[in-house]
Amino acid sequence: MKNKGLLLVVSGPSGAGKGTVCKALMEKYPEVCMSVSATTRKPRPGEVDGVNYYFLEEEKFRSMIENHEFIEWACFCQNYYGTPRKRVEDLLAEGKDVILEIEVQGAIQVKSKFPEAVFIFVMPPSLEELRNRLSGRGTESAEVVEERLQTALWECTNIEKYNYILINDDVNDATDRFAAIIEAEKMRIERNGQWIQDIRKA
Amino acid sequence: MKNKGLLLVVSGPSGAGKGTVCKALMEKYPEVCMSVSATTRKPRPGEVDGVNYYFLEEEKFRSMIENHEFIEWACFCQNYYGTPRKRVEDLLAEGKDVILEIEVQGAIQVKSKFPEAVFIFVMPPSLEELRNRLSGRGTESAEVVEERLQTALWECTNIEKYNYILINDDVNDATDRFAAIIEAEKMRIERNGQWIQDIRKA
Repeated sequence: MKNKGLLLVVSGPSGAGKGTVCKALMEKYPEVCMSVSATTRKPRPGEVDGVNYYFLEEEKFRSMIENHEFIEWACFCQNYYGTPRKRVEDLLAEGKDVILEIEVQGAIQVKSKFPEAVFIFVMPPSLEELRNRLSGRGTESAEVVEERLQTALWECTNIEKYNYILINDDVNDATDRFAAIIEAEKMRIERNGQWIQDIRKA
Repeated sequence: MKNKGLLLVVSGPSGAGKGTVCKALMEKYPEVCMSVSATTRKPRPGEVDGVNYYFLEEEKFRSMIENHEFIEWACFCQNYYGTPRKRVEDLLAEGKDVILEIEVQGAIQVKSKFPEAVFIFVMPPSLEELRNRLSGRGTESAEVVEERLQTALWECTNIEKYNYILINDDVNDATDRFAAIIEAEKMRIERNGQWIQDIRKA
């Protein structure tokens, strides 16, 4: 029997670079894949249904909520966003490690349904660096940068609900450390119950 | 300020190869070092005081017990064995990761004094392989092999008190996985309290 994969919940403030680290991890480790979220917002130019998001009508989304077909869902700016349960569970059963890149509020919902999931909070090396990165894009006004920084600080109030802090100082290093978390988690005693039982029987 | 090192408690049945893995880890990662145990048994040919063990008189050992100078201690075959506290705490304060290679009963004592320690149980890939390894040395009779196997099984009754199972299928792989445990543990949220407080203040 194939071992079940790990459910990896990744959060972190805008500018921490969590998307970049997750992408690098998938490229290096093909057994890791990302969940695709569903949303009721309209596709932006270049976005592909089933790749960037599953683009759904609001009625469909609401019926999926009622049928408990989401691991977590939320409503931002009058649009729904959620993680469909079915595909994630199928991938885990195949032994794939599945990343959910979601907000803190969604992560808390996941924890109640999948207490065995691994919760990773991606952070920049310092708040100064975060401010630099948020400004560095050059597309944001000082006000927006400040607002994002405040959001980042607000998100950190829930950081203790996570299992790991992954400092993204360098994408390659952070990717390797992410891989170390996955490797270590697979050795944790609570994930090796069957193995222990087999030994006991012997 | 330098981060405190990790206290790594390593146990496992005879024949699991825990000594080999620990040695390989130290060679690869100079920030990892091993604690030297104290004992009242006489040195065997080739054993060096302060390297293999600290060889102590029974009176000295007993006074150290009374002064709480051991992290853990036990009496086997009328000899005392123990882990002196001072050197371990000094090394941890220097930021070194310190391995205690000890019995399950000693590990339980460590857990009550150092709940933040990391507990790793080294196992061979299977009981068949363990039996092979115990026989493979060629120096043990079938009875001794069977007795050791029974001891191994007995030790596994406490395996759930450990944090990780490290399967020693291949020394190099097991060493790398040991390193992954260390790396992951340093990212655990409960070891990053200062960092979180700094963010909150900001």
